[in-house]
Parts: sequence; C-alpha cells; structure tokens
Amino acid sequence: MSNPFFKNYGPINISEILKTLDIKTGLDKNIDVNDIKDLYLAKVNDITFLHSKKYKDIAVNTKASFCITNNILKNYLPNNCIPIVVKNVLISTSLITTKFYPESIYDNFDETTLNIKKTRFKDSVKFGQNVLIGENVSIGSNCKIGHNTIIEKNVSIGNNCSIGSNSIIRNTIIKDNVKILDNCVIGKHGFGFFPDKNKNLRYPHIGIVQIDDNCEIGCGSTIDRGSMSNTVIGKNVFFDNQIHIAHNVRIGDNTIIAGQVGIAGSSQIGKNVKIGGQAGISGHLKIGDNVEIAGGSGVIKDIPKNSKVMGYPAKSIRQFLKENK
Amino acid sequence: MSNPFFKNYGPINISEILKTLDIKTGLDKNIDVNDIKDLYLAKVNDITFLHSKKYKDIAVNTKASFCITNNILKNYLPNNCIPIVVKNVLISTSLITTKFYPESIYDNFDETTLNIKKTRFKDSVKFGQNVLIGENVSIGSNCKIGHNTIIEKNVSIGNNCSIGSNSIIRNTIIKDNVKILDNCVIGKHGFGFFPDKNKNLRYPHIGIVQIDDNCEIGCGSTIDRGSMSNTVIGKNVFFDNQIHIAHNVRIGDNTIIAGQVGIAGSSQIGKNVKIGGQAGISGHLKIGDNVEIAGGSGVIKDIPKNSKVMGYPAKSIRQFLKENK
Amino acid sequence: MSNPFFKNYGPINISEILKTLDIKTGLDKNIDVNDIKDLYLAKVNDITFLHSKKYKDIAVNTKASFCITNNILKNYLPNNCIPIVVKNVLISTSLITTKFYPESIYDNFDETTLNIKKTRFKDSVKFGQNVLIGENVSIGSNCKIGHNTIIEKNVSIGNNCSIGSNSIIRNTIIKDNVKILDNCVIGKHGFGFFPDKNKNLRYPHIGIVQIDDNCEIGCGSTIDRGSMSNTVIGKNVFFDNQIHIAHNVRIGDNTIIAGQVGIAGSSQIGKNVKIGGQAGISGHLKIGDNVEIAGGSGVIKDIPKNSKVMGYPAKSIRQFLKENK
Repeated sequence: MSNPFFKNYGPINISEILKTLDIKTGLDKNIDVNDIKDLYLAKVNDITFLHSKKYKDIAVNTKASFCITNNILKNYLPNNCIPIVVKNVLISTSLITTKFYPESIYDNFDETTLNIKKTRFKDSVKFGQNVLIGENVSIGSNCKIGHNTIIEKNVSIGNNCSIGSNSIIRNTIIKDNVKILDNCVIGKHGFGFFPDKNKNLRYPHIGIVQIDDNCEIGCGSTIDRGSMSNTVIGKNVFFDNQIHIAHNVRIGDNTIIAGQVGIAGSSQIGKNVKIGGQAGISGHLKIGDNVEIAGGSGVIKDIPKNSKVMGYPAKSIRQFLKENK
Repeated sequence: MSNPFFKNYGPINISEILKTLDIKTGLDKNIDVNDIKDLYLAKVNDITFLHSKKYKDIAVNTKASFCITNNILKNYLPNNCIPIVVKNVLISTSLITTKFYPESIYDNFDETTLNIKKTRFKDSVKFGQNVLIGENVSIGSNCKIGHNTIIEKNVSIGNNCSIGSNSIIRNTIIKDNVKILDNCVIGKHGFGFFPDKNKNLRYPHIGIVQIDDNCEIGCGSTIDRGSMSNTVIGKNVFFDNQIHIAHNVRIGDNTIIAGQVGIAGSSQIGKNVKIGGQAGISGHLKIGDNVEIAGGSGVIKDIPKNSKVMGYPAKSIRQFLKENK
Repeated sequence: MSNPFFKNYGPINISEILKTLDIKTGLDKNIDVNDIKDLYLAKVNDITFLHSKKYKDIAVNTKASFCITNNILKNYLPNNCIPIVVKNVLISTSLITTKFYPESIYDNFDETTLNIKKTRFKDSVKFGQNVLIGENVSIGSNCKIGHNTIIEKNVSIGNNCSIGSNSIIRNTIIKDNVKILDNCVIGKHGFGFFPDKNKNLRYPHIGIVQIDDNCEIGCGSTIDRGSMSNTVIGKNVFFDNQIHIAHNVRIGDNTIIAGQVGIAGSSQIGKNVKIGGQAGISGHLKIGDNVEIAGGSGVIKDIPKNSKVMGYPAKSIRQFLKENK
C-alpha cells in the first residue's frame, strides 16, 4: 500500500462507502475516510480490512477508524476501529480500494505519452526511433532506450540503465545499472480478479514493480506489479528470456533465473537462488537462500535454504535422481 | 469452413483440379466447382474430402458433387458424388484448398494497412501512436487501441474493447468488452504443415479466431486461427501472460488459464475450467466442464467433467499427491 | 570464433594483456597479439585458451603463440606456445576476449539504424511502416519485412524471405526462403556470465545465429547467438510459437519443434527430430537423428538416435507409459 504512483481519490465519506457496499446500518457517523491501507499502516480516519485469523495480532493494534471484516473476525478489532461487516471481505475491500484508486484496475494504453523528442529527456537520454514517454517519468544519467519502447506513466529509471527495443514499462522503479532487454512488459496489473459468471470482477493493483541495481531482464519477459504490496527484484538478479513473474513476488539479491521460468503470485525467493529453465513455482511459497531448483521442476511447497531440489513435485535432487535412475 | 474473410478464387473447373492432383482419369466432365467444404456443408457443385471412416455416416448423405478420398472410403459416397481417388487425402485436400483460398497459406505482413489517422476510425476510436489498420476492419464504439498495434486485415472488434500496445491481430472476430493486453499475436496461421524432406508443405488455414464477450488475453500471448474450423474463446475467459493457444482449440465460457499455459491443436476445453500455470494440454483432447488442472501438469488424455487432475501424465489430484508424499 | 561481424580491436601487445590479467611475470616479450581463437584455429601471434583436459589432444598441436591456462594444463602445450597461468581460465579468457571484441558483450539498442526508406533497400524490398535497418545489412531479392521490425547491424538475409512485424534481428545470417514470424528476437547475446556478488560479469558473445534454407520461426520466439561458436538452425527446421533457443545450440535439418519448447545452451539436436510442446532440453546434450521427444518432457541426458522418449527425466516412451498407466 505504499504506491507512490496512483492518485488517491479520497477522502470519501463513510456514508458513501457503506452505500457502495450496500450496507444499511445504524452507523450514523459523518466521517471522511482518507485512505485504505493494511492493518499495520492504516491511521486514524483510514479504512482497513481483516479477512483472516492469521492477522488477528496486528488487528488488535490497528489505528484504523474502520475495518471491512466479517461477523467472527470483528471481535479482534480494538474499540477505536468500527467493524464494517460484509459477506466477502476481499470482494468488498476490492470495491472500496477501487473507489480510492480507480486508475489501478485497468491497464489501458497510456494516452499521456509523448515522443521523447518532445520531452525534457531529448538531450539527456540516448534513444531510438519512436520512443514514447508518459507522465511522471524520471530518467537518470547515461541511459539508453531502444526503438519503439514505451515508458508509460509512473516510471523512475536510475543511472546507467539500458532499456531495449519494443518494451513497455509502467508503474515501475528501476535503480542503477539495470538492463531490460527487448519485448518485455513490466509493471502491468497482475492476474488478479474474483471469478464471477459472465463477468469476472478485477481487483485493483496499487503496488509497483521495483528492480534493484545491476539487474538484467531477458527478452520477452513479463513482470506484473503488485496488488496490495510490491513486486520486488533484488540487486544483481539476472533473468534469461521469456520469464514470467506474477504480482507481489519478491526475489532476493544475486538470484539467477533461466529461460521460460514462471513464478506465481506472492511467492518469495531468497538470495543467491538458482532456478533452471522452465521451472515453475506456485504461489504464496517461500524459497530459502542459496536454493537450487533444477530446470523443469514444479515447486509446490516451501523449500528450506541451501536445498537442491528437482522434479514435480520438487523434492531433494538426490532422492529424485535415485528414484529415477 | 465458414471463414468470412478469405477470398474464394473459385469457381475452378474440375479439369484444372484433376490436373493439380496429377490425375489422369476417364472423367470427362466439364464442371465448374464453386468451393471446397466439409462433407456436411458442401452443396451441389462443391468439392469435399473424406479421409477417415469416422465420417462415413456424414459421407453417405453429402450433397457435394466431388469428393477427394481413397480407394476404400470411396464406397461410402452416394451416387451424386464422384470420388477423386488419391494417395494422400489430406495433402491433396490441402492442395485444392490452396487453389480456392491461396491467401490462407502464408501470413506475410499486411501491406494494406494505413495509419489509423487516415481511416474512418480516426474520430470514433481512442488510439495511440503509430497504430495501423488493414482492410476489412470494423471497430465498435468506445474502443481503445494502444501504441504500435497493428490491426491487420479481416478483424471485427465489438464495443468497449481495449487493445494494448505492440499487439498484432488478423482474421479475428472480437466481441464486446474484451481486453487484449500488450505484445499479443492473434489470428496467425497455426503450426500446420505436411513434413517433407527439404521443404515442408504448409496447409491452408481458412479458419478464424473468435473471442467472445468479456474476455481478457494476457501480455505476450499467441492465439492461432483455425485451419478448417475456427479457434474459439468463450465468454468471460481470462488468460494470464504468455499463453499459447494452437489452431482449432475451443475454450468454454468462464474458463481461467494461468501464465505460460499451452494448449495444442484441436483440443476442446469445457466451461468453468481452471488451468494452473505452465500446464500443457496435448492436441485433440476433450477437457470437461468444471475441471481443475494443477499448474505444471501435462494432460495427455481426455478429462471427464468435474475432475481435478495433476502431474504428468495428469491423473486424479488425490492419487497424485498420495503417490508423491 | 568465426564471427564475421564483430570488429577485432587487435593487435594488442602481450604486455597489455598481462596487465589486464594482473600478471607480473618474467615474460619480457614485446609481441603484438593479433586475435583470440580456440586451440584449433589459432595461428602464430594469436592467443588461445585451455581450460579442460578434454582438449589436451588439440592443445599439443596448437599454433598459438600464447595460451591462457592453469598450472596443470600448461604441460600439454607445445614449445611454440607460451602458457599464461591464471586462477580461473574462463574468466581470464572472457576478459581478454572482451579486449579484442568489446562490442560483443552488451546488446544495447542499435543506434546506427535508419528508416528503410532512407536505405538502398527502399526499392528492392517490400516493407511495412517504421522498418529500421542497421549497418552491415544485406537483403536478397523478393523479401518482405513487416511493420516496426528492426534489422539491427550485422544481418544477412537471403532471397525470398519473409520477416514478420515487431521482430528484432542482429548478428544473424538467414539463408533463402526463410520465414520469421512476428515478435521474435534473434541474435541477441545468450544468458552467459560469471556469477559474482553484487555484479555478475558478462562474458562476450562473438558467435552468430545462422538460419538455413526453408526454415520457419514462430511468433514470439527468441534465438540467442553463440558465445565462442555459433547457434545454427539447419535446413527446413520449423518452430512453432514462443520457442527459446539458447546460445551455441545446433539443430539438424528437417527438425520440427512445437510451441513453448526451450533448449538450453550448447545442446546439439539431430536431423528429423520431433519435439513436442513445452518440452525442455538441458544444456550440453546430444539428441540423435530421428528422435521423438513427447510434449512436456524434460530431457537431462543424451538421447541416442531413433529413440522415442517421454517424461521428466525423459525415458523410453514405452517404459514411461507402462509405469504411468
């Protein structure tokens, strides 16, 4: 919830929020709500949400004035926080987040872009043909941007970076000495929605992508921005071609990922991890530091640090090779 | 064989067809053949083909005047239909289809495109830089088309659609409220050819891609058009990034497909199916409604409706997890 | 080491080479070194390298004047060749190769490109909008190049070729009758570097990509150029969409590769091989002629000719299906 990019359309009066959620309640407060944040970050006059018992310890200390939750979980909230009881906490949270950040739902093409020749970067950046730059973009010194590349709105690029051709970037912070190769798409919303007959309900992605110093991102890769948190690629991480990184993934420093690997949403990869080609990692997993995952493996549970795994489901490489002699 | 897009270069005289197939026969008819269609759709003065006993029940009732077939299958044809006996029915059918629809074989870039600013869409569509529009394109109201995107010839786009940047579309019907994200290629011919030493023989793709209401197609995805039938994506189907859908695939409504999945030619996916990341589905399979396929699975046989499968080859998820504890 | 494209910045004096390697030695020669080549190709006044006992038989006959090697392997060198003993032969070789070929390390966008309308190809090639052509490009007769495609420097295209739209090609030799479809990236450096904390060390890629007659490369594919040798796609090889071919891979004639396959670095694929969708092949393997690899397989060892394999790790298809009934 620390997105520096999306415009907060708040404050929104609590009566309007209740109306959006179709709640007719005795609540007769006339309070302006400033923002929607998680239990930890929310302040007085913010709204938050509690959808799982896992977060009860944080809930008891929240400073939020309102909390979207259900009939059971509401009991964990402190007195300063008025529960707003709904059927489906995540769907309701999504609706309210969309009210605060309506631009975070869809990723239509950026209409604000200008040819780089018409921007302040025309002298400071080395650029190819037909390069477009959106609003709220900063670019450091000694950077190159290749032909037909589109730096959409809300992108910060550090020093000594090289962006290839035909790539598209938005809602992304890129640090120094980063190389993004050709045909990449970085910073688009993740594959997040509530399935519904006839018309799925997209939820907002107010997170960003952050790519730290000295990284290299291979051709044809896609890195989605986070939904409520950020997608983070640590320092000196190298991607081969055709990698897919889903929303909220975090990758530790010095990790190396070979071609066509996919990492599903919210998984955390440690430092110095090596992932072989075409391996897949399911969502919401923790892969420890120094882990080695053989090419083609399918990882469906957490992997402790310093392990070497292989197979589908991925297991100890020694055991896998013994079983598959 | 219901392609609304490819120009039929017929009628073609039967003598020319026989010459193309290198057949010297007693047949001394001088009949103009109008079109090539399947056994069911063919009418008087059309040519059809019969390459498998599977279709004998349809064959006996065909209205076609001619049928490309072999020495055994010809006996299923009715009196109104003159058999044209060849060694390899599919190769001969391909040759004749190519004569009727020569433009369906190769997908060279579309030379007919104009910058959208020079077309009738310049006021009705919201568009980015360098957007190109080919011949025989229609676009509904309230649509957006991103930078560098190429709508090649033979595309129909409904209302309220959003096409991303750097995408290429041809021979495709897109219904309402569809989102196509960046870097997609939709409607190109499939991976269909007859292998031959030194120079493979491509066969025609006279089918189209149809994408129904409320779909979303993720970044970097490829959807090939059908060869003799269509590739169809049902209503409210959501694709994550880097999906590949081969020719003639049909996907039912409300199906959800995660990143890097591939579906091989002519497979049929039911409604409300969920397919996890990097799963692969072989060609010519039937996946029933409400099936769940775990990420990374390799499906090599039909899956009955309401099943949950996992593994390679994909089997009952319960069995798979038991065997892989 | 037979790259026709990269400029050799030699000769370089041996004293400067030793300084680069931080070697203070009694060696007081003042010799200009012309080039860096492998043990077999190196001539008098060239430098070469020996990093493995595997190459001792070639080493004893090398004509090179200098050889980067270690304290043990140096004993295989003939009298005409002065050993330069280092800790890590490959890293040192990489450093010296970079001195001779500094442009082979990074693939920043090609600044030399011009719109094709301003080049000598404006009348001889059929081209789309916004096509860019770099330096040292040749294009044969009857070729087509689609919209937004970038033919960067050092590309030779034969006759009757069709390049799609949004593709990027450099350092590549394309023979006759080749089709490259849309959104491909061909000829970029491979995923080759020495991992190092904080900042990996890229090694040079002085090889090229060679694509022989009658090939077809599907949409969204990436083919990396070789590091010290070339990446070679034989005659009449057909790729489906979203294929990834790493550096130094060699593929024999008439091979067919289905969608989303990945082949890791330096593997050699025979002639008439068939590879099913999403299969992966590890690096440095030999796949014999006429091999069939089932879709989704993971190949981690050599496969003898005429075999059919399936599974992960790939084994005899008969055995695999028996074990997985």
